[in-house]
Amino acid sequence: MIAGGGGRMKEVHSLGELRLARQGLPGPLGFVPTMGYLHAGHLSLVRRAKSECASVAVSIFVNPAQFGPNEDLAAYPVDLPRDQALLEQAAVDLLWVPTADQMYPAGFQTWVTVEELTRPLEGEHRPGHFRGVATIVAKLFNAMHPDRAYFGQKDAQQLAVVRRLAQDLDFPLEVVACPTMREADGLAMSSRNARLNPKERQAASVLYRALSAAQQAHAGGEREAGALRRSMVEILQAEPLSRIQYVSVADPETLAELQGEVRRTLLSMAVFVGKTRLIDNVLLGD
Amino acid sequence: MIAGGGGRMKEVHSLGELRLARQGLPGPLGFVPTMGYLHAGHLSLVRRAKSECASVAVSIFVNPAQFGPNEDLAAYPVDLPRDQALLEQAAVDLLWVPTADQMYPAGFQTWVTVEELTRPLEGEHRPGHFRGVATIVAKLFNAMHPDRAYFGQKDAQQLAVVRRLAQDLDFPLEVVACPTMREADGLAMSSRNARLNPKERQAASVLYRALSAAQQAHAGGEREAGALRRSMVEILQAEPLSRIQYVSVADPETLAELQGEVRRTLLSMAVFVGKTRLIDNVLLGD
Repeated sequence: MIAGGGGRMKEVHSLGELRLARQGLPGPLGFVPTMGYLHAGHLSLVRRAKSECASVAVSIFVNPAQFGPNEDLAAYPVDLPRDQALLEQAAVDLLWVPTADQMYPAGFQTWVTVEELTRPLEGEHRPGHFRGVATIVAKLFNAMHPDRAYFGQKDAQQLAVVRRLAQDLDFPLEVVACPTMREADGLAMSSRNARLNPKERQAASVLYRALSAAQQAHAGGEREAGALRRSMVEILQAEPLSRIQYVSVADPETLAELQGEVRRTLLSMAVFVGKTRLIDNVLLGD
Repeated sequence: MIAGGGGRMKEVHSLGELRLARQGLPGPLGFVPTMGYLHAGHLSLVRRAKSECASVAVSIFVNPAQFGPNEDLAAYPVDLPRDQALLEQAAVDLLWVPTADQMYPAGFQTWVTVEELTRPLEGEHRPGHFRGVATIVAKLFNAMHPDRAYFGQKDAQQLAVVRRLAQDLDFPLEVVACPTMREADGLAMSSRNARLNPKERQAASVLYRALSAAQQAHAGGEREAGALRRSMVEILQAEPLSRIQYVSVADPETLAELQGEVRRTLLSMAVFVGKTRLIDNVLLGD
């Protein structure tokens, strides 16, 4: 027996169709914005939304505005038929698949920027990324008008940015954070994992091993930011296929890098494994 | 007999009160955002909204983010009791008067920017102005969630910017433009007119006289942008109390300055009369 499903999912493409379909959905509406190539992480967001909302809508849109000129937009994995089947099976009510032409038509020139929060970490290494994220999220929120929007803790800075923009721009919705889903060896689920070759895939667990080492040090009483940082760097450097882009011990709200004794803190990192850039994080001291 | 009125207008201050009151309003909802110190121009927007919508809401908020450091925020005229009486009499259903603390709390850091359209004219002479306008309009739209929003043609560039941002960010509403209201001598109604002394008030009709001269030249067959511009400048320069900041003959959609033969065009200007900066415009060739 398959739970849910049964062909009731409506799929729309244009903004006009979306608005019409949206009106027919009973509230509260839960919304899961995605870039497709769905994995168990996305599906955990859908399940959470299903459990809390009368209706659930998902969008699939690989947003060009959040990819830099040297980034992997063209290489971003796509498998719409598989995504459709997974969402249908998860009893999603509405799937919206807009096109880049609809979202960024000729003459488009309005951008949403979140300032301080987007300067460090991903923002520092991916200039323009969060302008693209904030703008598409504002557009998706306006088009979908959800009551709750679900985001994964895996993209910790994105989550902080979306929370900030929802608050600052008075979006009438609740941003719900959901825990990172992990493979058996601890690798955080990500559409980008599909690009790892078998050796890289094995090496990729190093991010979680590094985070776990710092977590254990913290559990053992270590409170010094530099020591926590070093415990992660050591593990990462011991893995020959990995190359560190950043390793951070930051304030979970402001994302400012911490020095000295820390209480609550966000440990995060961006690490290349082969040519694939992976990110991961854990929250300490909650 | 007074038409409308009768104490049915609800007034709210916090976002929470607004959301609750908004839910009780039958749709479609027309929204007139203002900075207060209302005049016949604002009231014409309210009347238009009343004629087209089941409910009408007005906001009064002198938005600090759209005033530059050398601008006239502190001097901006305020008379809330008078505004309340006028709106009550105009049978407005809901008045929202937020405070700057609510709209820009500590930690606020999200901004909406419209790019090309905000570079010339007011944007050139008031750096940051349209970022403030676009941000507050996005906030007001999200908080109020109107079906139609009413703006005056008097602020032509603001109208173009709001239209662009509503389209680019997929706000589910219609932006309605309303004609400029004028005094008997042609002076465009503006809260800033209150600052003119009697001599300046008399001189201030020079903006409309200049626009009218160009309009008449156009009606007489003049199509050359430079000639239209000169016809305005001549009139303005003949008025000793006025000082030109800009005089423009621009494309009505892109606001790019035009040269050579023109068809549809926006004539606009910013002129100091004494210490008061006034703007005005007319559309030609519609």
